[in-house]
Amino acid sequence: MRISELSRRSGVPVATIKYYLREELLPAGVATSATQAEYDEHHLRRLRLARALIAVRGLSVSTTREVLRALDEHSTDLHLLFGLALGAVSTDEPDSPSDRPQEPTPADELISALGWEISEKAPTRTTVTDTLRTLRDLGLPADWQTLVPYARLAERTAELDLAQLEDTEDPLERVERAVLLTILLEPVLLALRRMAQENESAKRHPRP
Amino acid sequence: MRISELSRRSGVPVATIKYYLREELLPAGVATSATQAEYDEHHLRRLRLARALIAVRGLSVSTTREVLRALDEHSTDLHLLFGLALGAVSTDEPDSPSDRPQEPTPADELISALGWEISEKAPTRTTVTDTLRTLRDLGLPADWQTLVPYARLAERTAELDLAQLEDTEDPLERVERAVLLTILLEPVLLALRRMAQENESAKRHPRP
Repeated sequence: MRISELSRRSGVPVATIKYYLREELLPAGVATSATQAEYDEHHLRRLRLARALIAVRGLSVSTTREVLRALDEHSTDLHLLFGLALGAVSTDEPDSPSDRPQEPTPADELISALGWEISEKAPTRTTVTDTLRTLRDLGLPADWQTLVPYARLAERTAELDLAQLEDTEDPLERVERAVLLTILLEPVLLALRRMAQENESAKRHPRP
Repeated sequence: MRISELSRRSGVPVATIKYYLREELLPAGVATSATQAEYDEHHLRRLRLARALIAVRGLSVSTTREVLRALDEHSTDLHLLFGLALGAVSTDEPDSPSDRPQEPTPADELISALGWEISEKAPTRTTVTDTLRTLRDLGLPADWQTLVPYARLAERTAELDLAQLEDTEDPLERVERAVLLTILLEPVLLALRRMAQENESAKRHPRP
């Protein structure tokens, strides 16, 4: 297909596609004349993924290039692909357990109690530990045990997430969906929780 | 207690407490001399709630004053209290169904299918509808039915949330906890989902 068709099917403006080509986020098309090139389905999927990483996940162009390059090198390792696209893991820095503090953090204890396999450097560990500290500082009785039932529900949410990637075989398309579903559903999941709280509160506290 | 003790027990600096007193977020203490006043447990709870609304929920001082005033007027209506503190409802503008578009939105259809009681003006409705539109624009097969199983998990999350408020009787303290737990756990719940995805992905896609 021509670049105009690639633009129409992806919803990405032609000028942006040309910029991505210059920045090597997309491989060049097959030249059909001095000024025209032909693109295929692979370009389309890669373009959509690049767009999702930049516009939805908010990555810089250079980080997106690195992620896409890593995706090319590891295209059979779906687990690593998801990790790369979602920012949980990195290819260039191996886990270094020796750098970690001796004392297990609340996040470490939670993950260990759940029996989860989570990379040592996942930034989500810090989120858990820092929030528990804040809650305690504010006088709320919350520790990692408080989070166990929430984590069990998160497991079921993740099963729903992953199940939605099953109906496509193409690794790039799966990764694109993983990024979009993970990031775009975040505000929705929080909105559903707020609404469910409102509903549960109405059930527990009938209006006087 | 003196203002210094109030500061120590709340973790709020004395200068900030004086500012809150001037802005009428806190009622004046009982004057014990020309320059000293005595504060009680009610001041402490109200101070902590004001601090939570401003520092954690990010409300302005004037909005916080309105919320606290509404809390005073409706202190027996726990359902309304939570709604006010969490921003789901407002006291001054009644629901006006006539303003709503004729066509039910995807959020309306979802809420109706779930059997939830949600105020017509909840901003969370817009979040759901807008995100579904974005997902569809990006070519993902997602409609309100996709969200039903997520919403069922959100119900169970909300039950966990509300259960954590049960062990205190004081309405101000319950509302403070509701605000803190709802807002502060948001990044943690998203972090748990990411970690659960990583774990689920490791189970489904063993490393090649």
